[in-house]
Amino acid sequence: MNSDLLQFPDLCDLCDLLFKQTVPLRQRRLLLQPATMALLNANYLKLKAGYLFPEIGRRVSAFTAENAEAAKRLIRCGIGDVTEPLPAAAREAMKRAVDELGDRNTFRGYGPEQGYSFLREAIVANAYEPSGCKIAPDEIFISDGSKCDTGNIIEIFAPGNTIAVTDPVYPVYVDTNVMAGNTGDAWPDGRYGGLVYLPCTPENHFVAGIPNQKVDIVYLCYPNNPTGATATFQELEAWVEYARANEAIILYDAAYEAYITEPGIPHSIYEIEGARDCAIEFRSFSKHGAFTGVRCAYTVVPRDLMASTADGQRHPLHPLWNRRHTTKFNGVSYPVQRAAEALFSDGGKAEVNELITHYLGNAKILRDACAAAGLAVYGGVNAPYIWVACPDGVKSWDLFDRMLHEANVVITPGAGFGAAGEGFFRISAFNSRTNVEEVARRIAAMKW
Amino acid sequence: MNSDLLQFPDLCDLCDLLFKQTVPLRQRRLLLQPATMALLNANYLKLKAGYLFPEIGRRVSAFTAENAEAAKRLIRCGIGDVTEPLPAAAREAMKRAVDELGDRNTFRGYGPEQGYSFLREAIVANAYEPSGCKIAPDEIFISDGSKCDTGNIIEIFAPGNTIAVTDPVYPVYVDTNVMAGNTGDAWPDGRYGGLVYLPCTPENHFVAGIPNQKVDIVYLCYPNNPTGATATFQELEAWVEYARANEAIILYDAAYEAYITEPGIPHSIYEIEGARDCAIEFRSFSKHGAFTGVRCAYTVVPRDLMASTADGQRHPLHPLWNRRHTTKFNGVSYPVQRAAEALFSDGGKAEVNELITHYLGNAKILRDACAAAGLAVYGGVNAPYIWVACPDGVKSWDLFDRMLHEANVVITPGAGFGAAGEGFFRISAFNSRTNVEEVARRIAAMKW
Repeated sequence: MNSDLLQFPDLCDLCDLLFKQTVPLRQRRLLLQPATMALLNANYLKLKAGYLFPEIGRRVSAFTAENAEAAKRLIRCGIGDVTEPLPAAAREAMKRAVDELGDRNTFRGYGPEQGYSFLREAIVANAYEPSGCKIAPDEIFISDGSKCDTGNIIEIFAPGNTIAVTDPVYPVYVDTNVMAGNTGDAWPDGRYGGLVYLPCTPENHFVAGIPNQKVDIVYLCYPNNPTGATATFQELEAWVEYARANEAIILYDAAYEAYITEPGIPHSIYEIEGARDCAIEFRSFSKHGAFTGVRCAYTVVPRDLMASTADGQRHPLHPLWNRRHTTKFNGVSYPVQRAAEALFSDGGKAEVNELITHYLGNAKILRDACAAAGLAVYGGVNAPYIWVACPDGVKSWDLFDRMLHEANVVITPGAGFGAAGEGFFRISAFNSRTNVEEVARRIAAMKW
Repeated sequence: MNSDLLQFPDLCDLCDLLFKQTVPLRQRRLLLQPATMALLNANYLKLKAGYLFPEIGRRVSAFTAENAEAAKRLIRCGIGDVTEPLPAAAREAMKRAVDELGDRNTFRGYGPEQGYSFLREAIVANAYEPSGCKIAPDEIFISDGSKCDTGNIIEIFAPGNTIAVTDPVYPVYVDTNVMAGNTGDAWPDGRYGGLVYLPCTPENHFVAGIPNQKVDIVYLCYPNNPTGATATFQELEAWVEYARANEAIILYDAAYEAYITEPGIPHSIYEIEGARDCAIEFRSFSKHGAFTGVRCAYTVVPRDLMASTADGQRHPLHPLWNRRHTTKFNGVSYPVQRAAEALFSDGGKAEVNELITHYLGNAKILRDACAAAGLAVYGGVNAPYIWVACPDGVKSWDLFDRMLHEANVVITPGAGFGAAGEGFFRISAFNSRTNVEEVARRIAAMKW
């Protein structure tokens, strides 16, 4: 197509420039010629093809194809997926629910899109009331995953918000903003124009500092994926204060909350006074109750939370998310909701506790092994991830290759999580104890 | 906020007009003053509050509160939800899968976001190969519902497409376009500016005729919700021809495909030659295998299907949907996927067949009762919905109230599905035989 056609003929130079900068090409074209083919969302074309985990998969496949013997020794500490069985309490509840569906007198079809009351109430009673957070059951939206929720949430916001993410970052926050057209193109280092990146480094112990500019929306994740860092009360108080002062919204991803076992660390953003005015929280049963393959999570949208239209009218966000959730989602599988509820039973809690203890035990072994090897180690205390500094000057993908080839251990290179992740790698504690002990031995045997 | 502030000072009149019409208010404001509060997606504010089923719920609640005795007789033929139990084949498969998750040797965490191969292959072998449709397993995306998929699909398209929907219409197609900013405001009759509505009436036996203008995307649903109409080969061939000639895309919702029992009616858009170039198909296990509470569906995006960027570059849509699905979704619950697979076993097929036969038997009874009452009746032969013309001049919400108060039967007023639905009502055949026979008696007893 000839771009000359896109010249709008009768505009002064200033307006022509303005027109080109602000009117989407499609609209300009519509003014000038009939439309042709159905138009795709070109924001998707900005997404970088080499997504982290596919690239890890590619390198691991190439390695195993060439090293059949070593491949047998391979231990995967890369992707953050649980390995230990689904708790019996959840399994039994799920099977009972399946039986209910087999009898027309107890059969259930469509449930409430927002989730059954039994689960919403169990969450309030177990996840919020004990820490004094005032969350009502109808502020909780049951979903099939925090990845889905943290991805979908941007839909209720307008284009034009200034959006901040941490660096390193869980890629979904960024990619879904790219898809939504909230960013510019990708830069060579993997960042996208238009986003505000908040570096997380050893200096700020991997907790994003308050930005020195106004942002409208900020994604925070504590315990953090990938760094394993947690935020203190003071740090979250500063964020809530910033958000309220700037009428910004905090999207608080607490998917790893269950791993906080030390006292004095906030489990929820709502433990901070004033957070109901400025924060949405995401939580998940995935890492909490071995639900990565079962699929259940939830999002909290307080009724106090407001945002505005472009002409300054304030509206609560709860009805918007409710409308999205009931229009583009149809509720979580009933047996799955029963399984999630069962994690809050006495038996379920004991089993969850055992899972967390197991994974945190793994984390300690891995931390100790890395520290003994002389590496600087972060995270892994109230989180299932250990964030390790590469030896001086070593790039994270080079370290990935070394660990794959020399130790036959798959880790995740920090650069995959953002520019500030360069020089670090993530080890996941999701594994059997046997494997973790073996990984510790191999780390000890490597030349650092 | 003073709208005078939004005058961009140095533009000629033409350009000022253009600027106001095309530059979002937010961007104009950013040029002139600092941003204030986080901005919500104001498209949500265009959505009409009185959504169909909540309004039905409200009227039914008011009725039962005032008529305790009559409320006991209430029979609901409103919402399209199944009533008969989940097939044993599905329940057994689901419970076996739950057991697998209880053993660390067979435990599964995250599955492929697009669905397990076992299910994608079973779908190809059972739903497509027998009718000669050439669909590859990796063109099938397993999801948690057709409502979700038909709602989410618009994300991979750009704003600026001309979008056509039928009238009456499944409200999700429209509402998700409103949310995405693809429409103008609502008109008093419930339609939205910017959409092309294709009336479906007795004259075209409720199959949308080819529009006399170019559209880029069209939503078609056969067997239709709410009218129960099916499209012939000839009608779908005309649509495929239109789509190919205009480089438009058909979003083909075949969620009720299992109810096609008469020969000579296409089950899939891919039975039409050339459809792989122009159509995405949605199917569901909800009405097929009593999965409304279990949640499993799938979307087919052929690799041949293309759309273009605004500057005319053609790209396949498969990678875009794949990217959306893998970024904003995390796969369907493993036990649910096993349950869906089991519907394709010999035992599962027999049970599904029994369910369909039951509901279509209900539909016949309801059709016959309405016809005997002198009403014009449509649908209900290859679909679980009967679409009935109200007696001359009676509005559909008035008929809803009459049936509620006189027969204590809940139906769905046609106007709730669009302006062209006025003068009709929908009866759902999803019920027990006993209830359906009682509804038939009450229809016979009413004064029409």
